[in-house]
Amino acid sequence: MSVLIVGTTALDSIKTPTRENPRLLGGSASHAAVAASFFSPVKLVGGVGEDFPKKYIALYHRHKIDLAGLQVLPGKTFHWSGEYEVNMNNRRTLATELGVIETFTPILPKAYQNSAFVLLGNIAPALQHSVLDQMKKPKFVVADSMDLWLNIALADLLKLLKRVDGFVLNDSEAELLTKEDNIFVALKKIHKLGPKYVIIKKGSHGSIFSGPKGVFICPAYPLHTVEDPTGAGDSFVGGMMGYLATAKGSIDANIRRAMVYGSVTASFCCEGFGLNRTTKTKRADIEKRVKELEKLTKF
Amino acid sequence: MSVLIVGTTALDSIKTPTRENPRLLGGSASHAAVAASFFSPVKLVGGVGEDFPKKYIALYHRHKIDLAGLQVLPGKTFHWSGEYEVNMNNRRTLATELGVIETFTPILPKAYQNSAFVLLGNIAPALQHSVLDQMKKPKFVVADSMDLWLNIALADLLKLLKRVDGFVLNDSEAELLTKEDNIFVALKKIHKLGPKYVIIKKGSHGSIFSGPKGVFICPAYPLHTVEDPTGAGDSFVGGMMGYLATAKGSIDANIRRAMVYGSVTASFCCEGFGLNRTTKTKRADIEKRVKELEKLTKF
Repeated sequence: MSVLIVGTTALDSIKTPTRENPRLLGGSASHAAVAASFFSPVKLVGGVGEDFPKKYIALYHRHKIDLAGLQVLPGKTFHWSGEYEVNMNNRRTLATELGVIETFTPILPKAYQNSAFVLLGNIAPALQHSVLDQMKKPKFVVADSMDLWLNIALADLLKLLKRVDGFVLNDSEAELLTKEDNIFVALKKIHKLGPKYVIIKKGSHGSIFSGPKGVFICPAYPLHTVEDPTGAGDSFVGGMMGYLATAKGSIDANIRRAMVYGSVTASFCCEGFGLNRTTKTKRADIEKRVKELEKLTKF
Repeated sequence: MSVLIVGTTALDSIKTPTRENPRLLGGSASHAAVAASFFSPVKLVGGVGEDFPKKYIALYHRHKIDLAGLQVLPGKTFHWSGEYEVNMNNRRTLATELGVIETFTPILPKAYQNSAFVLLGNIAPALQHSVLDQMKKPKFVVADSMDLWLNIALADLLKLLKRVDGFVLNDSEAELLTKEDNIFVALKKIHKLGPKYVIIKKGSHGSIFSGPKGVFICPAYPLHTVEDPTGAGDSFVGGMMGYLATAKGSIDANIRRAMVYGSVTASFCCEGFGLNRTTKTKRADIEKRVKELEKLTKF
């Protein structure tokens, strides 16, 4: 089965302590879609401006991403620029030019509306709602978010949490949402807001899953160099959803392995600027790291 | 086989956001010795003052800890007081009264000198050297340390690293020692300083091991409440050494499981002030959590 993915389709200008890369393909939907494409067909929902480079359309095509839901709108593509500190864990936004994203409304082509797997990637909760409103009967819906929406659109987000099966957020966002610094207590509080499946991401420390069959401690793949972590969280959840969409058996039976596949896909994302390393990755490279992670965690 | 453990034997006054507990039994040797005692006989090396409470001697006895190497010296027992911040990850020292520790010199009883497993718990590197100098032919020596010694006794510590099989430190100490924030690069740099086995502790995020047979990502047991993390690192390494001392087979074959046992022992330590929860723990409780961790990490 395919995965429908909505989120931002952006141009990212990223500074790290060692390098600077202007106007790379970025955005939550781009990272998640490319990650999911290693495992399943992907239907993209997003909006770009008239300045969106053709080479990035070609990139989507190379990953066989269905672009029937990608609107090219009058105006400029959403542009984000940010800078990472030396330890690569903290980043600050230098500029955000919303461009066409400001007025973008998702319109789902008919062929999209029956999708079974839906990833509501990081974008305004109102737009995530709008996508869900257009869906027939999705089997498994997961939402991602960010601190911005917790701060400026909390009511919308809380309503969304009652409509989704799964919610993914990072540890600082979990604390912001629940006012609870213990990750396992926070997980319980988030379940009470609606989602049956909750994943708290911890960057290089891996992630913690909580669902009907209990907790799973998901490892991160050991990286010796982190070139640019932008999009790693989107790659994680994209890879996970792609894996789930084609795996046989129940969500409960597959979710742990799906997270490990997501984690490994995210590891490649970190090894290059933007999508540079991810797009050079082969499915066999992913399988190799998954096998390694099995060995690295066995006791 | 038994484990010889040297380190501080102290009285700890610990403040957390919710409670205050004065003059609990503490110190690296106390925590490590009690943790190790669940798995193997323990020989303690340390020094206390004449004010050392009899009830704590009784506590050591209940854990069948051999006290032939515990000197009762004229003066006061080492007293540390500290305060934890709300998130329990950061602590600051309020007062350090060295007492008898200032002039303490370890003297190993004859029966100690043939010990196969030696844990040089956190104490001045000169004293760790002094213990090693008195040993005949230990099979497996592991050293722990802290930022203080990295700052004020680095030369001694670097010499020590050439004499030990294993070295345990936390992530911030690893960065301080290697000037490297990537944990996997730091591990390689620490190997070059001598130790064949290196463990970097990451608190609630678990720990990372590196040895001749590769890397192991060791999980932390999920805790819903952390009452007082003081001594958790000592409990971890104490539990690990206790397990190793009685396990059949090679160090390489047993070290991963040993770390998981150490990790679980440390989880009990965190659930009570000082040694309050650890001393109420039974071996069966530990086995139960180890089995749980197996389930929590399987994919």
